[in-house]
Amino acid sequence: MPEKRAARLSPDDRRAQLVAIGLDMLADRSLDELSTDEVARRAGISRGLLFHYFDSKRDFYRAVVRQECDGFAAATEPDSSLEPVPWLRSFITGFVAYVLEHRKVYLALVRGAAGSQPVVEDIVERTRGVLARRVEEAQRRLGMPDSPRLPIAARAWMAFAEEAVTNWPPGGPDAPAELGAFLESSFISLLGALDRPAALPR
Amino acid sequence: MPEKRAARLSPDDRRAQLVAIGLDMLADRSLDELSTDEVARRAGISRGLLFHYFDSKRDFYRAVVRQECDGFAAATEPDSSLEPVPWLRSFITGFVAYVLEHRKVYLALVRGAAGSQPVVEDIVERTRGVLARRVEEAQRRLGMPDSPRLPIAARAWMAFAEEAVTNWPPGGPDAPAELGAFLESSFISLLGALDRPAALPR
Repeated sequence: MPEKRAARLSPDDRRAQLVAIGLDMLADRSLDELSTDEVARRAGISRGLLFHYFDSKRDFYRAVVRQECDGFAAATEPDSSLEPVPWLRSFITGFVAYVLEHRKVYLALVRGAAGSQPVVEDIVERTRGVLARRVEEAQRRLGMPDSPRLPIAARAWMAFAEEAVTNWPPGGPDAPAELGAFLESSFISLLGALDRPAALPR
Repeated sequence: MPEKRAARLSPDDRRAQLVAIGLDMLADRSLDELSTDEVARRAGISRGLLFHYFDSKRDFYRAVVRQECDGFAAATEPDSSLEPVPWLRSFITGFVAYVLEHRKVYLALVRGAAGSQPVVEDIVERTRGVLARRVEEAQRRLGMPDSPRLPIAARAWMAFAEEAVTNWPPGGPDAPAELGAFLESSFISLLGALDRPAALPR
């Protein structure tokens, strides 16, 4: 079978195509294992041409991760005109849907990023910051009392939510809704009264 | 300066020494960057002799990680004769102290382990399982109602606790106690009423 000829694409379209191939390949390998040779082959172009569009392997990796992180940030951004409760629900629903759909890439890139992939750490950290501020915004929109602990609690709740989503048993069509309700209730329990801590039952 | 002569150690002591050197070096590098040449040099022995004690680099890495994980499990194991509330507090105090003291190694090995370091993934996963079961045990000892969601919530709370500990501002001597109280209250909020979810304040 003849090798597929590369279609003529604009530079922007070509870059987007290569990044999309890279992202797709990350579903079953780590960033370290992402071969630019293989990416070029799948795009039907030479490795040399790939490096016409990206300065270096590092540059390509960063473009792939930035794309993933931008998608994550966009998928979890509620319409700012929503009322507080629908705003929180829209945020949680977006978070659940995104993590469920991008599970492997999410685990490899976003979650395991602490110290493991220095080349993209700043991009991932920035995105985690965006998400954490969204948690803080939901807390404030709901009129929950402010606390100096809010920034830490917001990040910690996000870790809680990540872990719950990635461990939730795959289920029928109700699974995302049940997971969403579970996270909503954990959000209220945790972020509703940060400076009026729950007391032990005895 | 003459190279330090290797002291004559028993095989077990030598293995323990090499593992301790490896663990020590992990404080400022990842497992991938842990050079067995350097470990042997620090121990004052040849690389060949190191591989007399460990079958392979992989075998050495696994021994280092097992040591770290065993230490983590031991540091967070409460005396089983304690009453429920002191049992939970002992667990949390051990967790906080261990993570604060082993911060970098903890982040690199235990937390970022999802998919990133296949060679030790099973060891880390087993330890996470031990810790999660300890969270479940605390929940039961406290007489909190059981729920099919407990195993997921236990792991998610652990992720919450990890994130809170690793982001807690370094402070005076009270910092660990305040952090412990914060985690205790989050434990109660999150694991106290899993099937009676909190409702939104409106």
